[in-house]
Amino acid sequence: MPYRAPVTDYRFIMDQIADFGQVTATDRFAEATSDMADAILTEAGKLSEEIIAPLQRPGDLHPAYLENGIVRTSPGFGDGFKAIAEGGWIGMAASPEYGGMGLPMTLTTAVNEMLASACLSLQLNPLMCQGQIEALEHHASDEIKDLYLPKLISGEWAGTMNLTEPQAGSDVGALRSKAEPNGDGSYAVSGQKIYISWADNDFTENVCHLVLARLPDGVPGTKGISLFMVPKFIPNADGSIGERNSLRVVSLEHKMGLHGSPTAVMEYDNARGWLVGPEHGGMAAMFTMMNNARLGVGVQGVGTAEGAYQHALAYANDRKQGGKGTIIDHADVRRMLAEMKADIFTSRAIALMNAVAIDMTTATGDPAWKARAALLTPISKAFGTDVGVEVSAKGVQVHGGMGFIEETGAAQYSRDVRVTTIYEGTNGIQAMDLVARKMMDGGEAAYQLLDEIEAASEAAKATLPELAADVWSACENLRETTEWLVEQDLQDRFAGAVPYLRAFARVLGGHAHLTAAINGDETRKRLATFYIKRLMPEHTSLLAHVREGADDLMAITAADLAA
Amino acid sequence: MPYRAPVTDYRFIMDQIADFGQVTATDRFAEATSDMADAILTEAGKLSEEIIAPLQRPGDLHPAYLENGIVRTSPGFGDGFKAIAEGGWIGMAASPEYGGMGLPMTLTTAVNEMLASACLSLQLNPLMCQGQIEALEHHASDEIKDLYLPKLISGEWAGTMNLTEPQAGSDVGALRSKAEPNGDGSYAVSGQKIYISWADNDFTENVCHLVLARLPDGVPGTKGISLFMVPKFIPNADGSIGERNSLRVVSLEHKMGLHGSPTAVMEYDNARGWLVGPEHGGMAAMFTMMNNARLGVGVQGVGTAEGAYQHALAYANDRKQGGKGTIIDHADVRRMLAEMKADIFTSRAIALMNAVAIDMTTATGDPAWKARAALLTPISKAFGTDVGVEVSAKGVQVHGGMGFIEETGAAQYSRDVRVTTIYEGTNGIQAMDLVARKMMDGGEAAYQLLDEIEAASEAAKATLPELAADVWSACENLRETTEWLVEQDLQDRFAGAVPYLRAFARVLGGHAHLTAAINGDETRKRLATFYIKRLMPEHTSLLAHVREGADDLMAITAADLAA
Repeated sequence: MPYRAPVTDYRFIMDQIADFGQVTATDRFAEATSDMADAILTEAGKLSEEIIAPLQRPGDLHPAYLENGIVRTSPGFGDGFKAIAEGGWIGMAASPEYGGMGLPMTLTTAVNEMLASACLSLQLNPLMCQGQIEALEHHASDEIKDLYLPKLISGEWAGTMNLTEPQAGSDVGALRSKAEPNGDGSYAVSGQKIYISWADNDFTENVCHLVLARLPDGVPGTKGISLFMVPKFIPNADGSIGERNSLRVVSLEHKMGLHGSPTAVMEYDNARGWLVGPEHGGMAAMFTMMNNARLGVGVQGVGTAEGAYQHALAYANDRKQGGKGTIIDHADVRRMLAEMKADIFTSRAIALMNAVAIDMTTATGDPAWKARAALLTPISKAFGTDVGVEVSAKGVQVHGGMGFIEETGAAQYSRDVRVTTIYEGTNGIQAMDLVARKMMDGGEAAYQLLDEIEAASEAAKATLPELAADVWSACENLRETTEWLVEQDLQDRFAGAVPYLRAFARVLGGHAHLTAAINGDETRKRLATFYIKRLMPEHTSLLAHVREGADDLMAITAADLAA
Repeated sequence: MPYRAPVTDYRFIMDQIADFGQVTATDRFAEATSDMADAILTEAGKLSEEIIAPLQRPGDLHPAYLENGIVRTSPGFGDGFKAIAEGGWIGMAASPEYGGMGLPMTLTTAVNEMLASACLSLQLNPLMCQGQIEALEHHASDEIKDLYLPKLISGEWAGTMNLTEPQAGSDVGALRSKAEPNGDGSYAVSGQKIYISWADNDFTENVCHLVLARLPDGVPGTKGISLFMVPKFIPNADGSIGERNSLRVVSLEHKMGLHGSPTAVMEYDNARGWLVGPEHGGMAAMFTMMNNARLGVGVQGVGTAEGAYQHALAYANDRKQGGKGTIIDHADVRRMLAEMKADIFTSRAIALMNAVAIDMTTATGDPAWKARAALLTPISKAFGTDVGVEVSAKGVQVHGGMGFIEETGAAQYSRDVRVTTIYEGTNGIQAMDLVARKMMDGGEAAYQLLDEIEAASEAAKATLPELAADVWSACENLRETTEWLVEQDLQDRFAGAVPYLRAFARVLGGHAHLTAAINGDETRKRLATFYIKRLMPEHTSLLAHVREGADDLMAITAADLAA
């Protein structure tokens, strides 16, 4: 069924929940007026619906493949990418100095979600490009910026990230790729990288790889890692394409889903590269790229969930059963659809609140906004992608037997989105980031957010006493466990990190739905009631899980697990 | 990694939790001594490990296909099926009168789980045969029994179920297939059936279809449906193969998983069939077949979970990370593995308690046992398959990036098992069955079970006071909501049916783990503590979901869902 971009929902969340008005009130983003936001969302919605969505199924049926060392992409993907590039959507948040639109991350986030709903495997390419653009803007020399940014922003060239090696996944410090100075300002980069998304294509003039490698004097571990720009074709000073670099796609992976996105093993054999950021400062640059990419991946989850939901809803409205009416009238089908819609709203609201915090950090430099953005990023990523997996699974279930048959497309959402809980840092890594790094402030950023939510629910008590009281209590429960958590050692935090992150998201969802009920129509009130009464209570059992700490868990030995 | 049959776990659950001793104490099953049970489990384990498990991956890579109307099966599947047949495993519960072993369903259940762990797509075939054998034993004429049962039990012929039609899925009463008397005792059966698992193969001499169709005087709805045996080749009186019947495989589905199991669209064009059971009595016969098939499918979930768990555990023990040790030492990986193991144990215990109740019904005819079996069947099916989906998803997650790559096999478990929450009645249908049909006794069967659990946890308080108190309270919570539930109308029950079923399973799991902690070693005590403290609390939020009833859910209109 044809995808319809949920533009009103973005606007509602931006205006009524995430307070996007704060962003446009800053000098930095003064140009992003309400009219402009409308025009952007509408235009991107049209592109997603008409040009990108039709590529979803062909991408699955005709995966990218390797032919004599060249990656051949799925039918229509080249035209789709060009349409995204020509609309300016790759560089919408990028600096106007290099051809970008300089728009807030909030709008980019909404647009990325639409493109992800329409065709996840293609959308991953511009998402990678956006990450590279941002890393270069923050860390590259002017020379590299001048040469690469205009081409990346225009979509003439594409960009990738190269972190993982066979022995170095989540543990990136174990990487073995090397870089040696060539004496002319460039470096000879050698090594093998795996899981490289969109490592190559047959529709951009060049592909620019950001590669983590160790200089000869780099210490072991993450502190000895540097970042290099290693292009497929070495650009001439005028931006034209020069000689072929010595790097190659060794093979493409055969994956459970996301077939339209080539995932490669890459080999660099004394390939010429240029340092991005300081020597041994690769991790910092990588984190810039990864932090926003993490929000971007979370939104891939939300977008896939939206696509799967619309697909399932259409089926439920269409599928006759029991003589009278369609299956949407069955309570259990209605429950599944309501759960799907309520959780999409929650994860979307969290992502947009996160994006607003990023924009406010950019516009004001205020460390409180920075801490807010940092706190919300792992939640956006992990909860957004969990919702992607769960909603697409329910989408299959709503279809019944048809859900298991590939022709309906329901299964594809489920297979495609599966990787999003894994890449860009597994959801376990996200949760560990939340309870460790993001709580290094003793919980300060979390408490500030909880204060705001409690104040909002306090105020809401006049209008919707019961729902507001539920959200207030949930918030208190989360606060108590947070207070407990920050007193524990890391092992105790890690043992409950995943349930803690989900409990946090459940409470944020309570806040988002309550605010929607206060500021929205009856439809939003009904969905909020459903969420707060039926889904939010999950946080209590999750917090019980958290409060057990690590002892009883780590007491279960490897031998116990094998018994 | 090679599959290892968890024989000790079956024995422990049978002896210490499900009280299999009651079964062997009956005259009917007196021959199933402890030594015999050991021999059977060991032998079936060996078959599963050595002969069947190696077929899993080839079945995925080389799906069954249709060639000039003939189904060609995956490499090795013919030999695998023959090995299962020759071991007597198809007819292990069937009547010795026709060549079966007459063993308890409890042993069949354990053996089915092993075969499902080893190769789900092949195991589905003998499972369908078992269902057909049971339906014939209960409902067919002596003539049909004499002709078909020996061939089905020996595995010379295979059997299928034909219920679904394009317009009649969960709503089987809407079927349109027709049967007209030929005047010679046979009927002319016509119609199209879909989703027919193992509708054909190239390794058995015959394939016997049990087909639901309507006689000319059949009323609309389920009360006008009759069941027919429609064989691919019409047998001669001596059991040899006669003329080809006019039925054909129209096409095979392209599915998300279970590629080794051909799923067909079947067409019957005045095919000759014979009535099984009385005219218009097809649904009763079908329910016999489906009830035990539902336990069988639940166990497919448990078995897949076990396979996925062993696979993930091996990876976690092997995968080095962070310089020192392997990822099994990470708290979050340990958490996932502990959750997987604890839930496999829960779902396995429920299935074996269910099987014992079936055996006791067979042996004693006691209506209380019958009610117990009927109560547990939807829970075994839905929770077992949910565990299959959840554990295999965690298996993918434990593998990190490797989990999304098909070569590791982790993804296949996840894709294969996905259909088990759908076929044989979706898990939503199971939950509706639990809260409606299985509560027509006013909750009597549920209360009896809860009484037993409370008594057991009361007794356990002397030994393990804290865990026992938790289980006792959980049981009380479930009892209160059950008391509330049986007072509600159907719509209110249906709105919370799925969370109610899961809460029931969570409490049964508390009982099973507590009993294991009392009767087992320290390993079992540690796992029980983990389950009771960290996973069982989920029941409270699920019950909160249930107690909301239908009003707020059904208030969410189709228009709301499309907003």
